[in-house]
Amino acid sequence: MSGITPEYTHTYLLTAGECNAQGIMPVTLFAARVIEVATFHANGLGVGYDRLIADGLAWVLSRLSIEMYRSPEVNEQYTLRTWIEGFNRHFSERNFEMTDSRGEVIGHARSIWMAINIRERCGADLAMLEPLRDSVSDRVCPIAKMPRLTPVSGDGVRESVYRFRYCDCDFNRHVNTLRYMELLLNQWDMDFFDSHVVKRFDIAFMHEAKFGMEAQVRVTQEDARSYLAEICGTDTCYSRGRIIFGDYHYDMK
Amino acid sequence: MSGITPEYTHTYLLTAGECNAQGIMPVTLFAARVIEVATFHANGLGVGYDRLIADGLAWVLSRLSIEMYRSPEVNEQYTLRTWIEGFNRHFSERNFEMTDSRGEVIGHARSIWMAINIRERCGADLAMLEPLRDSVSDRVCPIAKMPRLTPVSGDGVRESVYRFRYCDCDFNRHVNTLRYMELLLNQWDMDFFDSHVVKRFDIAFMHEAKFGMEAQVRVTQEDARSYLAEICGTDTCYSRGRIIFGDYHYDMK
Repeated sequence: MSGITPEYTHTYLLTAGECNAQGIMPVTLFAARVIEVATFHANGLGVGYDRLIADGLAWVLSRLSIEMYRSPEVNEQYTLRTWIEGFNRHFSERNFEMTDSRGEVIGHARSIWMAINIRERCGADLAMLEPLRDSVSDRVCPIAKMPRLTPVSGDGVRESVYRFRYCDCDFNRHVNTLRYMELLLNQWDMDFFDSHVVKRFDIAFMHEAKFGMEAQVRVTQEDARSYLAEICGTDTCYSRGRIIFGDYHYDMK
Repeated sequence: MSGITPEYTHTYLLTAGECNAQGIMPVTLFAARVIEVATFHANGLGVGYDRLIADGLAWVLSRLSIEMYRSPEVNEQYTLRTWIEGFNRHFSERNFEMTDSRGEVIGHARSIWMAINIRERCGADLAMLEPLRDSVSDRVCPIAKMPRLTPVSGDGVRESVYRFRYCDCDFNRHVNTLRYMELLLNQWDMDFFDSHVVKRFDIAFMHEAKFGMEAQVRVTQEDARSYLAEICGTDTCYSRGRIIFGDYHYDMK
């Protein structure tokens, strides 16, 4: 054995403190776990934080697509599995599968990661990944790749303003993935989430937003189930997303 | 052995994705880990979510006091230990110690938990804890108990307005502990946190804030190092806190 570990799995328990107001796993926690198991796997493969920072680089998430067929409930165990679909000098594709305690697949995610030079804030060459060529997995991720996310425009666009604060910013001194996702979810009210659940969430991170910047959050309905959204400054778009909802019925315990 | 486990410990790795903009553990993550290990320990003792929900009850955090002597850095392992200091029919006192990978103690926390009847939203009797009397630990938590937190008033009060959104609310359909803490921390800017670090954070949860409610966030300086803060509606105070800062020097990697 070469020590290569083409897959990494981690089992979690969903605590009450982590649940959303409907008592189930929020899509933002799925995203947090995706980032966490990606980190653990990269560390195990020798391409984690330590390896990249030695060259002045850091991993940044560029795109994330999540599908949840069923959300874990409070006190339920769930397992995340991650594997590398492929990489080139510009980005790495890493996929995820979520299973429940009975082994049933309840979610998938696709992610695209880039390395940035943390001083120059520009994309960096991923040639250092080449030794990992053998750890690319042929496991299939059955969800569609992210569609092209078009600008939000036309009649019926809802718009609100948000200024990024201290706790929105992370290690890379820019606004964190989970904050962008929350900012989009916060465009709906509690009643909406009592009758709708996120089935698919696509989000692309286009430009860095930083502390103190003001953003316009725009949302428009694409069809009966699907909304397009974006978070933009005056000259640039920080992030663009699409959320597809399914029916849900919140039952108060 | 009776199976009683008076202490519970859990070891974590601090990932880059969890760090704050200064590259260290945010005090909110310490709070999240406190809640998590409290949950795991309560589950192990048979007084977790499952036991309480059988009576229509849920645990709610009433007070939290955190001291951090040193914040873990990225890729550093840390361990949380928790034990019960005592309980009565109204509340349970649970303490925490954080150690680094060398076993050095780098933080402590004190917490007060109540049970609420989730339909009537009122405090519930904790008599069901009585069998745990033997699992009360005599381990010392060296940090002071929470002081009486006085209303924020006088000259020099900074005030801002915040309306609670969907992602601020948790399983209990009220605003989450971590959101209150973030809302307070967000009253300072990035420059401030590049030169200051939270040494102690006290927060008391007084009344439930819910989705859509508007709050005034007020902060005033108590002395050179210490700030008093509160988050209030028109008639009621949701939460009151005190933050003590120490010096910090952010070194960009």
